[in-house]
Amino acid sequence: MYTKEQHPQPAKAPFRGLGISIVGGTGYTAGELLRILLNHPQVEIESVISTTSVGMPIAEMHRDLLGETDLKFSDKIGNPDVIFLCLGHGLSRTFLEENDIPKSCKIIDLGNDFRNNPVFAEREFVFGLCEFNREKIRTADSVANPGCFSSSIMLALLPLASLNKLTDDIHIHAITGSTGAGKKPVETTHFSYRDNNISVYKPFTHQHLEEIENTLKSAGNAALPQLNFVPMRGDFTRGIFASVYTKWDNSMSASEVIDLYKNYYKDSPFVFVSDTSISLKEVVNTNKCLLHIEFHNGYIHITSILDNLLKGASGQAVQNMNLMFGLEETMGLKLKGSAF
Amino acid sequence: MYTKEQHPQPAKAPFRGLGISIVGGTGYTAGELLRILLNHPQVEIESVISTTSVGMPIAEMHRDLLGETDLKFSDKIGNPDVIFLCLGHGLSRTFLEENDIPKSCKIIDLGNDFRNNPVFAEREFVFGLCEFNREKIRTADSVANPGCFSSSIMLALLPLASLNKLTDDIHIHAITGSTGAGKKPVETTHFSYRDNNISVYKPFTHQHLEEIENTLKSAGNAALPQLNFVPMRGDFTRGIFASVYTKWDNSMSASEVIDLYKNYYKDSPFVFVSDTSISLKEVVNTNKCLLHIEFHNGYIHITSILDNLLKGASGQAVQNMNLMFGLEETMGLKLKGSAF
Amino acid sequence: MYTKEQHPQPAKAPFRGLGISIVGGTGYTAGELLRILLNHPQVEIESVISTTSVGMPIAEMHRDLLGETDLKFSDKIGNPDVIFLCLGHGLSRTFLEENDIPKSCKIIDLGNDFRNNPVFAEREFVFGLCEFNREKIRTADSVANPGCFSSSIMLALLPLASLNKLTDDIHIHAITGSTGAGKKPVETTHFSYRDNNISVYKPFTHQHLEEIENTLKSAGNAALPQLNFVPMRGDFTRGIFASVYTKWDNSMSASEVIDLYKNYYKDSPFVFVSDTSISLKEVVNTNKCLLHIEFHNGYIHITSILDNLLKGASGQAVQNMNLMFGLEETMGLKLKGSAF
Amino acid sequence: MYTKEQHPQPAKAPFRGLGISIVGGTGYTAGELLRILLNHPQVEIESVISTTSVGMPIAEMHRDLLGETDLKFSDKIGNPDVIFLCLGHGLSRTFLEENDIPKSCKIIDLGNDFRNNPVFAEREFVFGLCEFNREKIRTADSVANPGCFSSSIMLALLPLASLNKLTDDIHIHAITGSTGAGKKPVETTHFSYRDNNISVYKPFTHQHLEEIENTLKSAGNAALPQLNFVPMRGDFTRGIFASVYTKWDNSMSASEVIDLYKNYYKDSPFVFVSDTSISLKEVVNTNKCLLHIEFHNGYIHITSILDNLLKGASGQAVQNMNLMFGLEETMGLKLKGSAF
Repeated sequence: MYTKEQHPQPAKAPFRGLGISIVGGTGYTAGELLRILLNHPQVEIESVISTTSVGMPIAEMHRDLLGETDLKFSDKIGNPDVIFLCLGHGLSRTFLEENDIPKSCKIIDLGNDFRNNPVFAEREFVFGLCEFNREKIRTADSVANPGCFSSSIMLALLPLASLNKLTDDIHIHAITGSTGAGKKPVETTHFSYRDNNISVYKPFTHQHLEEIENTLKSAGNAALPQLNFVPMRGDFTRGIFASVYTKWDNSMSASEVIDLYKNYYKDSPFVFVSDTSISLKEVVNTNKCLLHIEFHNGYIHITSILDNLLKGASGQAVQNMNLMFGLEETMGLKLKGSAF
Repeated sequence: MYTKEQHPQPAKAPFRGLGISIVGGTGYTAGELLRILLNHPQVEIESVISTTSVGMPIAEMHRDLLGETDLKFSDKIGNPDVIFLCLGHGLSRTFLEENDIPKSCKIIDLGNDFRNNPVFAEREFVFGLCEFNREKIRTADSVANPGCFSSSIMLALLPLASLNKLTDDIHIHAITGSTGAGKKPVETTHFSYRDNNISVYKPFTHQHLEEIENTLKSAGNAALPQLNFVPMRGDFTRGIFASVYTKWDNSMSASEVIDLYKNYYKDSPFVFVSDTSISLKEVVNTNKCLLHIEFHNGYIHITSILDNLLKGASGQAVQNMNLMFGLEETMGLKLKGSAF
Repeated sequence: MYTKEQHPQPAKAPFRGLGISIVGGTGYTAGELLRILLNHPQVEIESVISTTSVGMPIAEMHRDLLGETDLKFSDKIGNPDVIFLCLGHGLSRTFLEENDIPKSCKIIDLGNDFRNNPVFAEREFVFGLCEFNREKIRTADSVANPGCFSSSIMLALLPLASLNKLTDDIHIHAITGSTGAGKKPVETTHFSYRDNNISVYKPFTHQHLEEIENTLKSAGNAALPQLNFVPMRGDFTRGIFASVYTKWDNSMSASEVIDLYKNYYKDSPFVFVSDTSISLKEVVNTNKCLLHIEFHNGYIHITSILDNLLKGASGQAVQNMNLMFGLEETMGLKLKGSAF
Repeated sequence: MYTKEQHPQPAKAPFRGLGISIVGGTGYTAGELLRILLNHPQVEIESVISTTSVGMPIAEMHRDLLGETDLKFSDKIGNPDVIFLCLGHGLSRTFLEENDIPKSCKIIDLGNDFRNNPVFAEREFVFGLCEFNREKIRTADSVANPGCFSSSIMLALLPLASLNKLTDDIHIHAITGSTGAGKKPVETTHFSYRDNNISVYKPFTHQHLEEIENTLKSAGNAALPQLNFVPMRGDFTRGIFASVYTKWDNSMSASEVIDLYKNYYKDSPFVFVSDTSISLKEVVNTNKCLLHIEFHNGYIHITSILDNLLKGASGQAVQNMNLMFGLEETMGLKLKGSAF
């Protein structure tokens, strides 16, 4: 039975914490980083950079943070241990060109500048899919965080790729929430347009294809078949639902394949194989990725779900940070899902 | 310039109209029939049958009809010219077994009992995809109205099938609104579950596959390749968005294919080929089907959208009725889309 | 029984129709006018004016109109019988100043320029709430179409005002769909913000208060008590739900009040009193307004619903047009509700 | 600068934790308790009781918990330190009658059985609005957790009530998410009905009025004016948005009132006064309540937002548990908001 004496609360340590800077602080991924990192027990946010909002309290921009922080946007990076770059595509490179960041400061780039072109000056960006590059990330000074679509699709296919089992065209439909399109209001994120609507964009040509292909090849499927990827815009805010299938030669039984997946991810604290069908909200507001596998008509069909802003962006970035600094991989990332 | 004298309003004709009976009057498709037929200039609703709600005003059940009708649910069919069967699957057959409907009374079945098994007693049900069977429907006494998923998919593929151009596996993802699941509240139509959620159901095994295959074969593609169909539940109420692709051998140029489609549907007043990308709400609350065609990576990709309750059910049923009785095909079906 | 001979379809009259021009043709209310008027049996759209999109097919902007019209945006008004002004607030006045519109051409302004300041040159704008000003509208050459919030609130209160029964503070919460905020994407119409969100704006100070007060006073409640109006932004696209209450002195019984309402609107084809609770979608995509009345705690409580783009804007504008030209009030406005 | 040595991670204590039992484990509030308590550092879930699902893994019911727990539903309460009752109204009393729970085991009832009738056998339930009854809760063995609507409304009015400043009718509209209606699918929670819909229910008669009145009276406003409360069903899943106003006599200036509020809640870690307008998603998936205050037309207007399942139910229940067991009030409740 419980007594108070048995459960003393930990004294607050005189603890400075891992110093963090977030560059591009007004966008959605920066907001999610802040939501996570304000509760992370081993970090201290040193600076949140926004050239357009210097001096504004962060909680005036990310309004749900009211009462949680007095931080203000700044244009001084300071001397952090790690910088998160939350900039538009192309702007991470510009940032590094224009700012002299010491090699001792680690960098996690949430953009796509270094995913497929990893070298910048003395830095070499490790592709930050934790479940694939965990050991490399532990020792990396620079990490290129994967895209949201690509994370969901790579996690669906990696175990097969690791055994070179992808031998025929791969068919992918994946539907994304509106936050994937960023903060700037445009026609396709207008509520009057998007609500109760569905559309396809960039069919067969999405820019994430390259990082998916590179990863699957280097995972062991050097002769990769064609990836046919139809991205869709969904009428929800958070999450990616990917439906992926490819021909299956029955070289392994269904239960062997499911064991392969479970085994492949057995040390990955955020990826789970569900024995029953999955629906998107099972992962929304968490850093988890759920997979479900079925076999039909000579195909293996994998559904894969994650939260595009978390496992598909800022959550994975923190997971990378944890790995890079020897912290527990899940630290700060045991998030209560919204479920509904 | 306008003068009132030039624009006399038509006197109201002493017109009884085509007598209609709707059986299974409390469900969603019956409600849509009522919304259409109350404004149809050539019909009169004789009876709306519901064994569970006899005597209840229709507008108490279909509450948006308040002010539009004083009809009440009944258990007496009367002597209509045409009966619409809006019953659960299997129950249309039972209804015909238990009721002696004279052959002179036409029947339009919105269920799936007679789509693939068209013969019942002396009746032979014509498959009611107007764009495919228009001439047969004109002389039919019995029509089996197609399913919603199947309508969107058949219309996407019919022109190719007509030239026997479907030669390789066909890949289909289609996402449906919640009204497709009917009126009875269940877990997967609970708002707390469905809102902002996405899921897959019956992958590769949906019951509409048979009618799609039968139609495409009889359209001219006797050796039909495998159809791989992943149905998805969307978090919207109305509409089906189908994304369909198959290998393309370049035997026709892109513009030739688009001309093929436009030509195939040139006499079909509800099917249009869009030169630009389409989004679902362009057809919601209309009887239209829009198609858009692109070519990528050796594939032809067709997106197809329609309102599951209209062109995918009750709208198509009225279109069939118009054809069966020699009325203008669009009569009563020039519906204002909701657009937003 | 039906025979084709009994039901000949009306021959198409060699009819030019009432000539229409729509100014400000790219916005939401113009789109709705087009959706209605393309199916209106007595009009012909002469011109749709947009200075920014001259030459563009209308169906490229209002994409759901694909297949329904070949009209293009123009900058030439021509010689219409009636002009609909669908311009931003303040711009209707500018338009009339800059264009010499003959007095013989009728004008229906959907903006708020002339609702409270009705005189412009030789024109005097009649306030276009059909249920209140029906007879004046019939002979008007210029009509100021009411606002959406104000329409829902005036229709809730007019019968009481007509008997000078509003004697104590009036309490109003009304929640609007996103289309009320127009087409330009802004932060509060961003899907990522608006979806599943609720907020209040302009509490107690909304610009529609003036036209509501003017109308209720002129209806017979000269000494009008204070209107306390809290407008809310809803996470839906179409519709206004107004909840209105005020102290009730029991000078009439509940059934007398309900009879008063039913009687007040007995010749109004779009306003109905529901004996049971109402929900917003009972009117979406229709030109109807539904009212429901209850009595509690010494208050009379009225809920009022309408579609902000139809009875609250473009539908009412067409209703006004019908009245102004001696057409049946409901012509072109018997719209199939979306219901779901 | 960071070095790993400076930031050792806390060793895992050989800690059993506060023993928890949840009764009525399949519903929404139980699910939320599980989502919170699985990450709470000082508790251990001993049993989750469901008479209908004994033996089923919890993650099969609350599917988002896949990978987070191996617990199964049970019918054995065991010997917990505290029991959370998540039962339908009336069933908490029945449970206590049928089960012999020792007085040493604390009870937190999320139902409404003991809010207004606090005595049961030797237990006296303290009304568990932490911000009002914090000190009483610290020593309570039994707590009646407030309702969701009532929490949002009481927090909006308590500071005024504490100074006896509520002197005239209070006007309240509050709109709730669908999860407030529970898990059982019914017509008004059917997605096809609820999506993009709004309705009023139980106007002026909601069952939460009694606990609101009791609390405001005991807070210092013994002569409480009438509360006029119109509850609305919103088309979102989580959250309550309350808009509350009452006559204001200007006995205090606007800034004095805002200071009163800020001071009243200065020791309450979850309640904040926002200087700018608030929107519902600023609190969704958090245990926070945000308030915003304006003055117009002789009225004070307060908007109040909280998550109905968290600060309005399970979050507040854990906050109560923390207080009852001398834990930090915020422990386990620093939740990442979903924000979008």
